[in-house]
Amino acid sequence: MSEEAIQKIEALRKDIDVIDRDIVSRLNERANLALEIRKLKAESNLQLYDPEREERIFNNITSVNNGPLYDDDLRGIYEAILQAMKALD
Amino acid sequence: MSEEAIQKIEALRKDIDVIDRDIVSRLNERANLALEIRKLKAESNLQLYDPEREERIFNNITSVNNGPLYDDDLRGIYEAILQAMKALD
Repeated sequence: MSEEAIQKIEALRKDIDVIDRDIVSRLNERANLALEIRKLKAESNLQLYDPEREERIFNNITSVNNGPLYDDDLRGIYEAILQAMKALD
Repeated sequence: MSEEAIQKIEALRKDIDVIDRDIVSRLNERANLALEIRKLKAESNLQLYDPEREERIFNNITSVNNGPLYDDDLRGIYEAILQAMKALD
């Protein structure tokens, strides 16, 4: 029973690894778009930091959240994502 | 020029919103797999917390990271993701 469970866990972990690689790819696509926006803002002397945009991002992600992740935890993940986007150069 | 830049920014933001909705969907798929693993571990009296598995997750994501995100920032995002996974019930 335990051996069977371990094999099932290994298979599920492989599925998770595939999802993770896809998430990394999507995050880097997102980062490229964020860099394009930053460039446009700099060229047009628009303000870089936009708290209203952040609120719209949180509204967008929670509006499509069907769980099992909680909205608050998703928000926590997105705080880390937006922080990473700001660290780009 | 500024009006054109604002329109371009709006278009890029819509692309980002699409990516974000996809990321939320992938994160919830990941959460469902994590819950399956947790159930199998509980049934087989296997230890829930596995620091080696966390290290393998970080290795997996950084091995496919082609940027522009930095490995350290990606790791920060994944710390938030793994924390959210632990908060599931």
